[in-house]
Amino acid sequence: MRLNNTSNRATPTGAKSRLAVGLMSGTSVDGIDAALVQISGLAEIPRVRLRSFLTTGYPPDVRNRVMHAASGEPLTAQEVSQLNFLLGELFAEAVLGVCRRGRVSPKRLSIIGSHGQTIYHQGRPTQESGWNIASTLQIGEPAVIAARVGRPVVADFRSADIAAGGQGAPLVPMVDYLLMKHPRKGTVALNIGGIANITVVPPGARPGEVFGFDTGPGNMVMDSLVRHFTGGRESYDPGGRRASRGSVIEGILREALVFPFFAQSPPRSAGREQFGKVFIEQYFLSWPRLRFEDALRTALELTVKTIAVALIRFVFPRFQMHRLVVSGGGVHNRLLTRRLRELLPQLSFHRSDQFGLPVDAKEAMAFAVLADRTLQGLPGNLPSVTGARRAVVLGKITQP
Amino acid sequence: MRLNNTSNRATPTGAKSRLAVGLMSGTSVDGIDAALVQISGLAEIPRVRLRSFLTTGYPPDVRNRVMHAASGEPLTAQEVSQLNFLLGELFAEAVLGVCRRGRVSPKRLSIIGSHGQTIYHQGRPTQESGWNIASTLQIGEPAVIAARVGRPVVADFRSADIAAGGQGAPLVPMVDYLLMKHPRKGTVALNIGGIANITVVPPGARPGEVFGFDTGPGNMVMDSLVRHFTGGRESYDPGGRRASRGSVIEGILREALVFPFFAQSPPRSAGREQFGKVFIEQYFLSWPRLRFEDALRTALELTVKTIAVALIRFVFPRFQMHRLVVSGGGVHNRLLTRRLRELLPQLSFHRSDQFGLPVDAKEAMAFAVLADRTLQGLPGNLPSVTGARRAVVLGKITQP
Repeated sequence: MRLNNTSNRATPTGAKSRLAVGLMSGTSVDGIDAALVQISGLAEIPRVRLRSFLTTGYPPDVRNRVMHAASGEPLTAQEVSQLNFLLGELFAEAVLGVCRRGRVSPKRLSIIGSHGQTIYHQGRPTQESGWNIASTLQIGEPAVIAARVGRPVVADFRSADIAAGGQGAPLVPMVDYLLMKHPRKGTVALNIGGIANITVVPPGARPGEVFGFDTGPGNMVMDSLVRHFTGGRESYDPGGRRASRGSVIEGILREALVFPFFAQSPPRSAGREQFGKVFIEQYFLSWPRLRFEDALRTALELTVKTIAVALIRFVFPRFQMHRLVVSGGGVHNRLLTRRLRELLPQLSFHRSDQFGLPVDAKEAMAFAVLADRTLQGLPGNLPSVTGARRAVVLGKITQP
Repeated sequence: MRLNNTSNRATPTGAKSRLAVGLMSGTSVDGIDAALVQISGLAEIPRVRLRSFLTTGYPPDVRNRVMHAASGEPLTAQEVSQLNFLLGELFAEAVLGVCRRGRVSPKRLSIIGSHGQTIYHQGRPTQESGWNIASTLQIGEPAVIAARVGRPVVADFRSADIAAGGQGAPLVPMVDYLLMKHPRKGTVALNIGGIANITVVPPGARPGEVFGFDTGPGNMVMDSLVRHFTGGRESYDPGGRRASRGSVIEGILREALVFPFFAQSPPRSAGREQFGKVFIEQYFLSWPRLRFEDALRTALELTVKTIAVALIRFVFPRFQMHRLVVSGGGVHNRLLTRRLRELLPQLSFHRSDQFGLPVDAKEAMAFAVLADRTLQGLPGNLPSVTGARRAVVLGKITQP
């Protein structure tokens, strides 16, 4: 469990302040992130402040059940149904836990925004009995959360965007836009998770001018190398300390940089299909007498170079950019952030904390903000980012 | 496809009238019932009028996919997810179809209430990773319906009742209560589907005094016999004509009437587990030289006797009852309704049409009324019927 207590700007007088909880559980199925968020300000100029944050691990057998459901292996409708309600109980506990930690009565919450646990997502349609169908499936029954906490819940954010012809993802860019837009400063919000992705908010942008795409690997290649070289005993390189002791192997870097994905024009999205096991085998493990530290240092360089190249090729020619706002686990890698700053000296460097979004809580907070919008009847997707035909109100509202 | 156009009482002046569509697709997976309903009057004294009604069959391959999902056989999360969105498209077509038939622009709908297609339901909790979990799973993505029709949708009615400790069923009794309650007349709403169930609304009842239970077989035993004797070529006895040519076999009837289920005190619920294949084999097919017509006539007599006995044993001793209001497919069996009237001469006999609920459209209409209540923030379950700890607002609201 982790705790963050961070505030950004003062609440403007007269803007009604409300409390919301955002819940997020990622595809790594590590646990449930719950963020208690104070939201104030007008709809299009919200202010957010993290009041408390809590990560609750899944019990091992529940994690196994979720992993199995999401694995693509068959399971019964009974298992989907029971797991949906079981996760609802765990999500409700997470909400009550983050409220306790923040010393806030759950009764004071205006809304809970629950992303849910994705067990299937297909952003592009395929033929189904004569129809073109894309779909998404998040579980963690909101009726259970609403009943246990006694407050309304917004959940299932991605379906409405898919129903409107979008890919149902990414949704965080709306929050990047709301919190980072600036009349004269162009901003790149960079999230470094397994994959690195950017939201581009040009100076004075309207919603339709925001765009975003995956730049390539975030921590994925580095983490795979750590697991490979430690035989699975370690899963990442804390602070980038091990990489700091290595040197870039120019031969690997040169070859990896011409991997076809990096030449693709946006929109583009990546995953384990591109940068998983096959990638490190092909580019790294085939190298003779490869040292752990050098491999890591090279993977780190690949990550930062591909981020920089993506900005230089696809963003800077179109818009004047001034600020780089980083979030995600990769921010804890100090060598990585130092190299980013060196490669992109034209941008001022910020952690997302400076915009009210502490790096580890950012995603959970985003779903509190999106739920708050739904409650106000405001759209939550950015069609220019998801490909939807129009901006739509996201999610379903469940009363307690 | 069928059409009904029926009205009941005049809309009281000053009560705001609104249009809603109710969607229902039963466990037999025959197709989608869509009812366009005009609702007026105050929340606790609604008036309903069926404006148009449409049953759309499922395409055969979709029906097979639904049957497979609901069969208990394993399937992938992908199949659940894609089928959920595919059914959303078909449900949306049903809404647009019933609006066209009723010559009403979909834009005029205040709400759509979609029951969804049940692929799993477990009203009683079992142990799941240390939690007591009951659950329900209806598919037919409401975000797709909302997007295609352009109006808000309430769906997933059963989850909130289960989250409140109820069995998530039955939900129609709330609508029976709202439309049939009377200050001095006790009313039994009897629905004769595969199983026969009753809602008991005592004279001047408050919501907490309503109760209901399954009396036993409705059409299930008769229909099974038809399928058996015709080798599956026929599925029911139209109008009860074949049964009219047979005689009751007293030996079978006597033995079947002491089947343990009929002695159970309510609440009790039945299904194919009790009155399916095993039941007809044990009580009927074991009889020597059994004639088709006599078997049917006996099964019909078993149905009406067990309904009458249930009322006489469990209802009449507690409350004064005056009216019997019948609905469901069994109403089309004229011998069955005649025998019911003969066995229950103390009750005045009515079809649910007289209360604004044409017998075939009743269930779909009920979900239009329940959605209307959700939109008003009113509870839709009856804790005395479902076993929930409290009355709750049912369903989730999805905006277009």
